[in-house]
Order: sequence, then C-alpha cells, then structure tokens
Amino acid sequence: MRLFTEKLQVLNVGLGAFADAIEAAGGAATRIDWTPPAGGDRSLGLALARLVNDARVEAANRTAFAAYLAAQPVAQGIAPAREAVPGMDRRIILHAGPPIDWAEMCGPMQGAIIGAILFEGWASDPEGARRLAAQDAIAFAPCHHHGAVGPMAGVISPSMPVWIVRDAATGRECFSNLNEGLGKVLRFGANGAEVITRLRWMAGTLRPVLEATLQEAGGIELKPLMAQALHMGDEVHNRNAAATSLLLRRLLPPMLASRAGRGEIAEAVGFIAGNDHFFLNLSMAASKTMLDAARDVPASSMVTAMARNGVTFGIQLSATGNRWFTAPSPIVDGLFFPGYSTADAAPDLGDSAITETAGLGGFAMAAAPAIVNFVGGTPDDAIANTAAMGHITLGRNGGFTLPAMQFAGTPAGIDARKVVDTGLLPIINTGIAHREAGIGQIGAGITRAPLDCFTQAVAALAAALPDG
Amino acid sequence: MRLFTEKLQVLNVGLGAFADAIEAAGGAATRIDWTPPAGGDRSLGLALARLVNDARVEAANRTAFAAYLAAQPVAQGIAPAREAVPGMDRRIILHAGPPIDWAEMCGPMQGAIIGAILFEGWASDPEGARRLAAQDAIAFAPCHHHGAVGPMAGVISPSMPVWIVRDAATGRECFSNLNEGLGKVLRFGANGAEVITRLRWMAGTLRPVLEATLQEAGGIELKPLMAQALHMGDEVHNRNAAATSLLLRRLLPPMLASRAGRGEIAEAVGFIAGNDHFFLNLSMAASKTMLDAARDVPASSMVTAMARNGVTFGIQLSATGNRWFTAPSPIVDGLFFPGYSTADAAPDLGDSAITETAGLGGFAMAAAPAIVNFVGGTPDDAIANTAAMGHITLGRNGGFTLPAMQFAGTPAGIDARKVVDTGLLPIINTGIAHREAGIGQIGAGITRAPLDCFTQAVAALAAALPDG
Repeated sequence: MRLFTEKLQVLNVGLGAFADAIEAAGGAATRIDWTPPAGGDRSLGLALARLVNDARVEAANRTAFAAYLAAQPVAQGIAPAREAVPGMDRRIILHAGPPIDWAEMCGPMQGAIIGAILFEGWASDPEGARRLAAQDAIAFAPCHHHGAVGPMAGVISPSMPVWIVRDAATGRECFSNLNEGLGKVLRFGANGAEVITRLRWMAGTLRPVLEATLQEAGGIELKPLMAQALHMGDEVHNRNAAATSLLLRRLLPPMLASRAGRGEIAEAVGFIAGNDHFFLNLSMAASKTMLDAARDVPASSMVTAMARNGVTFGIQLSATGNRWFTAPSPIVDGLFFPGYSTADAAPDLGDSAITETAGLGGFAMAAAPAIVNFVGGTPDDAIANTAAMGHITLGRNGGFTLPAMQFAGTPAGIDARKVVDTGLLPIINTGIAHREAGIGQIGAGITRAPLDCFTQAVAALAAALPDG
Repeated sequence: MRLFTEKLQVLNVGLGAFADAIEAAGGAATRIDWTPPAGGDRSLGLALARLVNDARVEAANRTAFAAYLAAQPVAQGIAPAREAVPGMDRRIILHAGPPIDWAEMCGPMQGAIIGAILFEGWASDPEGARRLAAQDAIAFAPCHHHGAVGPMAGVISPSMPVWIVRDAATGRECFSNLNEGLGKVLRFGANGAEVITRLRWMAGTLRPVLEATLQEAGGIELKPLMAQALHMGDEVHNRNAAATSLLLRRLLPPMLASRAGRGEIAEAVGFIAGNDHFFLNLSMAASKTMLDAARDVPASSMVTAMARNGVTFGIQLSATGNRWFTAPSPIVDGLFFPGYSTADAAPDLGDSAITETAGLGGFAMAAAPAIVNFVGGTPDDAIANTAAMGHITLGRNGGFTLPAMQFAGTPAGIDARKVVDTGLLPIINTGIAHREAGIGQIGAGITRAPLDCFTQAVAALAAALPDG
C-alpha cells in the first residue's frame, strides 16, 4: 500500500532510457553511472570472472606487490650509455614506448632521433641523418628492452650520459637519460643547434661533475627524497620542483668536496637550479627499479610498465614478462601554450608513465594540488583522481604518503583485472609534443591509458592460466 | 496550527540551559556556539560597536592593508648588527617581544643573553655574564624597537650577523639574525661551548660567504620565493623545508660566482643544506617589512606586530604606533620531545608570530598539511584553521595563494575589532623552549594570542577616536 502513497525514490543503474521515461512522466530518478564489466564482452567477462576468483593470481599479486614495495632505488652513478647500458656498445638508439620502425614513428620521435644522430656525429646534417635512419644503418629498440626509461621521445644514444639507479634490495640496475629542461629540447622532438650544443655540454661538463659528485656521495637513496617531495607539492612526474631542489641540496656538499673544478660546478649548479624538471628522469629510473622488482611473477596481473611511442600505447604485465599489449596512443586534452591546440599535438608519448605505474604522477596527484595550473583541473579533482586510482590498484605504498589524504599511502600496483572490471582507466599526467619533428613542447595535460591494452592483457593471462 | 503538528527544529544560541530543558523533555536541539561580543563587557561592547561602524576606521584599514600588500621585501645584504641596525653600535642586546627587565625575563631568554655576552667576550664565564646582565651594564631592548625580529629568545648582540631586508616599495629596512638550526641553540636558551663556537663560525665564515653572495646576486626578492614555498607544503613559520631549499638553489649560482673561497662555500652550503629552518629568519624579516609598511595609519585597527618575551604577549596596532598592548604569555600545548611535558615549558616566546601577523604561519596552515606532524592536529584541522582566520582579517593576500583552498589568498591583516567581536583568537604555530636557561627546544605546537591584548587595543583605539 505505502508504495502507492509515498513519493518514489528511483535509482537508475546503467542505461539511461528507463530514467528518461520516468522523467517524461513527471517523476525523478537518480542516474548511477554503471557499465557492465569487460565492456559487456561475454568471453572476456567470463575470463575476468575466473581470474578475479583465482587464488593463484591473488598469491602472485601479493608476491609482486611486496617485491615492488621492497625495492630501494639508489642513484649510484652516471656514465655514457655505451658503458653503462647493456647492449649499447654499437650503433643503436633507444626510444620510448613499445617497439616501432623508423617509418612508423611520430614526428617528435623522428626529430629526436635525427638530433641524436647529429649529436653522435654519424651524419653532418638533418637530411643525412634522416637517410641514415631510414636505411637500417642504425638499430632502434625500446628503452624498456635495455633496462632504461626516457621521457617523451625517450631517445638515448651511446654517447649520452645516463643515470645508473641500483636496487639495493636486488642489485638490479635501471637507467635514464639526463633532463635537458623545457622549451626546445630533444625529448620533445627539437634538434636545432642549441639542442645539440646543450647535449654536448651535458656529456662533456655536466656528466663529469655529477659523476665525481656521486663517487664522493657514494650513492643517494631516492625513495626518501621522493617521499619528502610528495610532502612538498610534487607528484614527481610533471611537477618536480621540490624534488629537484632537494636533490640539488643533497648533491651540493659532495659536489663541493669532489675533484670537480669550480667553474664546472658553477655551470652544473646553474643548469640544475634553472630546471624544475631535472629530477624527472631520476624519478622515472627509480620507478622502473621498483617495478622491475615485481617482474616475471607467474600468474600476477600487476602492471609492470606503461609506455607510449607516440603511435601506440603499450603495457606489460608481471606474468607475461616483456610481452607488450598495445592500442593506439590517445591524443591528450590539456592546457596548450598560446597558439597551439589538440590539432597540433602528437599522440601521447614517452616512458614517463612508469611513474604512474609505480603509484606516482597522476596516481599521487593529491600530493600536488598546484599541478593543476600545469595539467588542468582543480585541486579537488587532483584528490578525486588519486582516490579513484585506489579502485584499480593492489594496495597502498606506505613509503609514499599523502598529507591531503590523512597521510594515506599512494595507490600503487595497477591490477589489470580491476581496470577491465571497473572500466576505470589509469590516469597519466603528461607533457604534449608538437606532432611535427623539430618544434618541441606545446602543452601538458591529463590522459588515460587505453582500455584495450588491459583487455588484451587479461585475455592473455586467462589463456596462460588453465582452469585451476 | 502547523507549529503544533510538525516536528520542531530547535536551534539553541549561546547558553546551553535552554537546550538542556528541551532535551530533558524528549526533544532535540542543535547547539550554536555563541558568546556575546566583547565577552559581554558593556562599555567595551559599546566602543566596539562604534568602531565597527566608523567610516574612518574602514578607510584607514584599506590604506594600511594596501600598504601591506604593496611591500616588496628584498634580501639585500648581511652585516654585523652593529653596522646594519640603527642604535646597536654600543653595549646593547636585543630580545624578542615587548620590553622586559633582566630580572623579569624567562629562563631561555636569560640563557640566550648569557650566551650573547660570552659570544661578545664581555664576560668570560656564565656567572660573570649573569652578573653583568643584572648590573645594568648592558642595555636591553625589544628587537621591534630597532626594526628587527628574532625567533624564540630573539637575542641579537652587536657582533652577530643580521639579514638586511629592504622594502623595494618604500626603501624601509628590517633585520633578523641568522638561523642556527635545531637542538642546542641560543634562541632556545642554550649557551654551552658548542653554541658559542657555532655563533663564532656564523659570524666569521657564514656571514662573509653570504655577504659576497648577496653582493653578486644584487638582492633576492622574497615574496615570490615565499609564495612558491606555500605551494610546496611550507607555511614559512614552523615549516621552511621548501623555502630553505629554494633559497639555497637561488643562492648557489651567485655564491659560486662570488669571491668566496671554495672551502668556505662548502662549509656554508653544508650548514644551510642541513637546516630545514634556515629560511625562517628571512621569512620573519620579510613579514616585518610588509607590516611596517602598514604602520602608523591613524584610526587603523590593523595589527602590525604580535610578539612574546616568554612572560608577556604583546601586540601593536597601526593607529597606535609603538604602543604595546600586553597580557600574560600562554603556555603552549603541543607535541613534546620524549621526556618533556607542558610542566617543563617556558610560556610562549619569540618575535616569530610576525609571520602570523603577515598572514603566514598558522594563518597559512592550509598550505602545509604535513606540518601537523610537527605541531599536532590533522591536515583537515590545518585547513579549518586557515578558514577560521578569514573571519578576523581585513582581506586576502593574492600574492600568497593556497592550492588546497582553490588558490584563495592567505587571510591577512588581523583586525583587532574582529578578534574582540568574534572571540576568535589568532592562531600561532610555534616552537617550545624549556623554561630553564641552557637547555633548549623541547617541542612545538599551536597556540593562540590572548584576547586581552585585543580588548586593550580596541579600547585605546576607541579612546583615541572621538565620536565622529
């Protein structure tokens, strides 16, 4: 009886047509945003249901996540890539994201490779460099295949200096190139004379100063420094102002005590002090170090890498090792520099999404309310983004706490199952490159990893795990 | 009729006895926390009502607040106090807070003065120093009477180096001593050999390096640096980790380009890099510079200083110049180092509440959620504290924005009328010294300025303004 006398309170789950009808009849309905798991794909949904209830996956994920938490990345040294990075003592250029041929590469990646060839002296002008690249005279490989990561184009050639980050827990080493600053820089596809001159100075002056400093310091633990930066408004992906300041502060005493000359120290300090993003590449190498510790755990659905080459977006799972699951790289809708728009933008690019994979960057936005000036949105969005990522991750990283969320740890360890189940896509804070070679950065924004990478990964994991 | 058929919603304003009766009869009442303005004092309430509606006060406050906003503090140099601070070329020692005689001073202030006498070489042992201080052989004066501010005991003697901060808008200069770090330090009343040795090193090595650096740099604008630090988790009173890092980063290039020797630079950098509080004294001098710009505006009820000598808490109003309105200094209830409690604490001490007076420190706690680890409370309390201070201030400082509050400016320009009207007391983040001379810091916490200072100030302002 009461049903007919009381005012109805209607919740509409999923398809809006039911609510439309109620509203057309003069009623009110609250719409709940819901879509079926696995996008409504029956066989994927069944595979997912099996994996979600699989004790082997749960146990494997506990193992992988614990290994990620236990990693202790230490900035151990700096050296030319050919000396430090396995397999780089030859004509090879590393790039961001999954594997890709020269002809398929996006403009900024080709631009950066041309710059790297000029820097190495393998060609004397951009046209010669382009010919060389197209001739198969140079090997190309993803950074990730050599234990390395690089932001944006992610281009690393043998003479470029790289950070050597060692996991004190396992002894494993990861690498990243050195950050060039903003504006016309190689990683955004610029390759003019100022870019090459800067790269030569970085190899010839900055590297020896930092090498002497790290020898004097005996290694710098990166997790405590990153944790402190998270308490100082950084998410250590697109905002590294605090981390760079803390790093410089940590480097200075050993730098001044080292064998480096005063003039060279002054140049190095001026360069680092003038570049808020200097820490980014160390943050990335540290993130990869933590995630590499979680690799190759059979049956684990934990994501160990997300990376983009500007054409495809790829992820790797712990259980499936170096196999890439790819989808087209999305266009980033963000804040553009004056005169540019999405029409000018290259699709999402760079290995820097390794920070999000490690529970930083977009996953730790709650630490960095001021970053919304750079990537868009409001400080409340930043907190909401971090909260949302808690639904697709395996746990919290108690080593990286968030003051604005009552000191909760950052959500970390993306579970591919949960992404497919909820349809919630990993958030990535990123820079935006011009789609043509030679121009550079045109903005920054927030994007999402494509669902398709995760559905493929879940299907592959299900195929690899017979009914148990 | 409806009144008797519907459920009553009762709000109880003020005295709880009415709500008690309703609840005893089985009803419900929401209690509104309210007390009469001016604490119910009739003559003060009448004076307040007159001032609140006085167009002269409103206009004067607009003038004072605009002058505060327009100030542009620049760290211009560093020099021995006797050379930089007017009236210090004699046997004088400055101290924190309102005027006080030697015999009345709290333990940590006496301890710091004994240390300063030993540092100056006016006596050769603590007993001799104590005798000298008690003999009227040395003049004592508040820092504020000499354009200076000092944290905690605030002791500045003629040979100590001081920061010279100049207001680019008015040319006015303010001063502060240099921060010694934490632990056994003069400002918390310690005066052992390590304290005196450090002070000698600061005068003999640190000062010349910083002097050469500032000459090379040509002055460092402090407001942009403080604004950036507020985006990096500092409130620039009890948390200066970001500001210190940013300052060091700013100082380094000119330091390395200066005439200072490499060994001295290494010592100076090691000292600054190891002291998260190094920026505090510059923050205080910058705050005083902004507030001095707002001084001496007839009829203005804006507070231009809050300062404590460990016995009395004093405030000054713009309209009444250098006149102090004082009340007993409160005991701070905070987080104590192991083994200590409020029983060991000296009452609230130091000129550092100048930062709160300038809209920083406790007023900007929303910028610094992580500070609750140091002063107590939760990150939500920090935001609530900043929001509450909006009720007793003249406006917002758009130069100091708060990401966690949608980039609102910090509440600034305390209006003594509003404090008396609302009973909301200014919040102060502060360190806690042991009440005995020679021991040092034992904790940190949050305290409130005493209401009595503000009621006296309002009464004096009302007396000075005949009915208009």
